[in-house]
Amino acid sequence: AKAKDFTYSNRGMTLEEDLNETNKFYLQSEIAVIHKKPTPVQIVNVDYPKRSAAVIKEAYFKQASTTDYNGVYKGKYIDFEAKETRFKTSFPLNNFHKHQIEHIKQVLNQNGIAFVILRFSSIEEVYFLEGKHLLSLWYRMEEGGRKSITISEVQEYGHRILLGFRPRIDYIKIVDKLYNLS
Amino acid sequence: AKAKDFTYSNRGMTLEEDLNETNKFYLQSEIAVIHKKPTPVQIVNVDYPKRSAAVIKEAYFKQASTTDYNGVYKGKYIDFEAKETRFKTSFPLNNFHKHQIEHIKQVLNQNGIAFVILRFSSIEEVYFLEGKHLLSLWYRMEEGGRKSITISEVQEYGHRILLGFRPRIDYIKIVDKLYNLS
Ligand SMILES: [Mg+2]
Ligand SMILES: [Mg+2]
Repeated sequence: AKAKDFTYSNRGMTLEEDLNETNKFYLQSEIAVIHKKPTPVQIVNVDYPKRSAAVIKEAYFKQASTTDYNGVYKGKYIDFEAKETRFKTSFPLNNFHKHQIEHIKQVLNQNGIAFVILRFSSIEEVYFLEGKHLLSLWYRMEEGGRKSITISEVQEYGHRILLGFRPRIDYIKIVDKLYNLS
Repeated sequence: AKAKDFTYSNRGMTLEEDLNETNKFYLQSEIAVIHKKPTPVQIVNVDYPKRSAAVIKEAYFKQASTTDYNGVYKGKYIDFEAKETRFKTSFPLNNFHKHQIEHIKQVLNQNGIAFVILRFSSIEEVYFLEGKHLLSLWYRMEEGGRKSITISEVQEYGHRILLGFRPRIDYIKIVDKLYNLS
């Protein structure tokens, strides 16, 4: 089947759902062990009713201090964040939080494999962009440069991922190629 | 200062607090990037008041599908779970959930570094036990053997960690030695 058979509009899936399915496929096929981290929540008040499960009655969303996905592939540490935009010609850098950028930098310093998966939802294109390129583009912004990554920069520095059936977003294929792991 | 100066009873710290401090030290010293995963919560009902933060009004604790801690050290994937017991002569295996054991097995198959940190709280001893040994002892139980690890087995297969000041529980030192990473 061709990649174009598996478009987002056909399927009504979010990027996160596709990545969760992809990770499930990798896990079941023993290709990689990668999980999404739970949403961080600050729990304030919990009820412990008799004979039933504890109920959280008051809690707040906390900002994550890392990226959303991590795990192991052939012994190597894998770490990534996934983000979507509706823009067609550029990807706004304010989609990332400063501590996510900091985390990517820390992972790279520790020789981990860090990247982002960017989806342009209106044109249905998905790209793999290595952490080192994201950092350069972020620093450019901090030095007064543009606040987004143009689509041609994404195409130049990144790697397009065509949607598949199983796995849906085969980012491990790109990890294999970039880091000579196959 | 001697290790005995930093006992739990002196300080009133939990194992989790000590590990969080340890990981903070590793992060700040650029030794390793290891974080505790957020507690997984099933969110059922959220209130979005005007002009203030969203309030989670109903949520439940979910069982984690992985271990609690993971990250990267010298490019390698690190994964561990920390558990405490009040028993003095053995560590009950029912402290672990079946899917945590399954996760440790998956990480080892992917050549990740997986282990557990066991604390005997009443005798104030902390041990590092490699995932492969935990799996053997778990399988022994599944085949009808004992439902716990005796303290002498922990001492034979594991590695004692004396409490320090900074870092408090220097498990990376043991990783270094066992996997020849130093
Ligand atoms: Mg996110
Ligand atoms: Mg736990």
